[in-house]
Amino acid sequence: MKELWKARQALVERALEAELAKTDILDPILRESMSYSLMAGGKRLRPILLMAAADAVGADGTKFLPVAAALEMIHTYSLIHDDLPAMDDDDYRRGKKTNHMVYGDGIAILAGDALLTLAFSVILRQKNVPAEALLRVVDEISRAAGAEGMVGGQVLDLRAEGVRITMDELRRMHMGKTGALFHAALRSGAILAGATEKQLAALTAYADHFGLAFQITDDILDVIGTAEDIGKPVGSDEKNHKSTYVTLTSLAEAQELARRTVEEATDALAVFGAEADFLRELVAYLVNRKQ
Amino acid sequence: MKELWKARQALVERALEAELAKTDILDPILRESMSYSLMAGGKRLRPILLMAAADAVGADGTKFLPVAAALEMIHTYSLIHDDLPAMDDDDYRRGKKTNHMVYGDGIAILAGDALLTLAFSVILRQKNVPAEALLRVVDEISRAAGAEGMVGGQVLDLRAEGVRITMDELRRMHMGKTGALFHAALRSGAILAGATEKQLAALTAYADHFGLAFQITDDILDVIGTAEDIGKPVGSDEKNHKSTYVTLTSLAEAQELARRTVEEATDALAVFGAEADFLRELVAYLVNRKQ
Repeated sequence: MKELWKARQALVERALEAELAKTDILDPILRESMSYSLMAGGKRLRPILLMAAADAVGADGTKFLPVAAALEMIHTYSLIHDDLPAMDDDDYRRGKKTNHMVYGDGIAILAGDALLTLAFSVILRQKNVPAEALLRVVDEISRAAGAEGMVGGQVLDLRAEGVRITMDELRRMHMGKTGALFHAALRSGAILAGATEKQLAALTAYADHFGLAFQITDDILDVIGTAEDIGKPVGSDEKNHKSTYVTLTSLAEAQELARRTVEEATDALAVFGAEADFLRELVAYLVNRKQ
Repeated sequence: MKELWKARQALVERALEAELAKTDILDPILRESMSYSLMAGGKRLRPILLMAAADAVGADGTKFLPVAAALEMIHTYSLIHDDLPAMDDDDYRRGKKTNHMVYGDGIAILAGDALLTLAFSVILRQKNVPAEALLRVVDEISRAAGAEGMVGGQVLDLRAEGVRITMDELRRMHMGKTGALFHAALRSGAILAGATEKQLAALTAYADHFGLAFQITDDILDVIGTAEDIGKPVGSDEKNHKSTYVTLTSLAEAQELARRTVEEATDALAVFGAEADFLRELVAYLVNRKQ
């Protein structure tokens, strides 16, 4: 699983570079700023999920690299904007200065805007897919990225600062902030690969459990991880009085919830054979990650 | 012409409200902030241009209100972000407080992000158009809005602050910042209405002249307009050492260039009959506007 992940990560890196190079960006500093954050490494989880969903349906996931790359552009734009002083005010990400620390707030906002917009152009560069399927993918991704999903979740997060929220509110916030794009990644992969309704439903269920497991693990790592492993200060959630799966329950309960959620994610894949092994191993691996 | 414009403006207002209402926005403050700027009036020029281009081709422009509304969402997002302290730092627009003055920078950034993203969902709500045409429209609009167009132009603008630029650089900046979206509006209207290549080329040429005439007039109004008419302080370009069509030439030369550009815009429409009268009258009207 890790080898395939690495190989595909390399494909994603190349696709991102190629898509940027193909784009006639009017200003060199804008290009540099977009590239600075886009090529800063990272797990490339959303593209990997999209390709894995297509694999599960029996297609070759690497055929859909343009749409996969577009998801990473949307993820990167959200990180640039989230890090701004007007939002989370973070100076470092993955051990590197954040975009606005290097280019200033104005260029950072515009680099984010440009990456979000470019994502939609890049989806349209996808070849060998029926027009109806591509339109459906644009719809999935735009709804997941916007006020119904990621942006909406970020607003809920901003507004929850210093406020104790309920478990339901926490879940709703994360379903928007991170869950929606995982959801769109898996569903888009399925749609591009021509999934049946049953397969699409299974991957959608997996996506929801996957997103939850991923977030609980994030919250756990903030407590038990090391700053070196995760590339940012640990214990920041407690310091910032942030509601998390750990602070609203306990470390042990959060770990138990993560374990159960991985099981549910795996159960959701029962309709698939070995083609979905990557997704089965991925979710198990991610809850045991150190970063 | 003005009556048709007003009638269609009213349709756009209703379409914008309806599209917002249809959207499951996760947080009420986000909805309020998006609506605050989206429903703040304005000429609704981009939707009007899209519909008029479809009319010119012999279709009924009002059939394409979803795509028209999407353009206005993109325009509104760009105004919200441009007004931010990190960019132009404007406190008022059209006589109303700017979005960040009411909701704070964080929510304003996110309201802009959400409007940009929602635009792509709203394009997909367009009915009765072949999938291929709709994909082409997504492509036109995303390229016009992003690093190749509007965002790129805004970066050029930010970087030109206090610097004397050449006429060519000025033109390139405006072609990105405002021209690209006019371009996409007219081309999208034509594509949705099933224009021939010849008709599309004519409307594209019109779009380029229209954008230039519009910008020159903006620069002229900054000198000869009244603050009350244009809703913001006049003379701000000179005060801010901004390069404009007036400061790089003279008021008289800018007025002459505007006049010639209107002629060229009108000439571009020679392939059309009376169906394009609205576009002919519109460009003439806009260079004589007071606001």
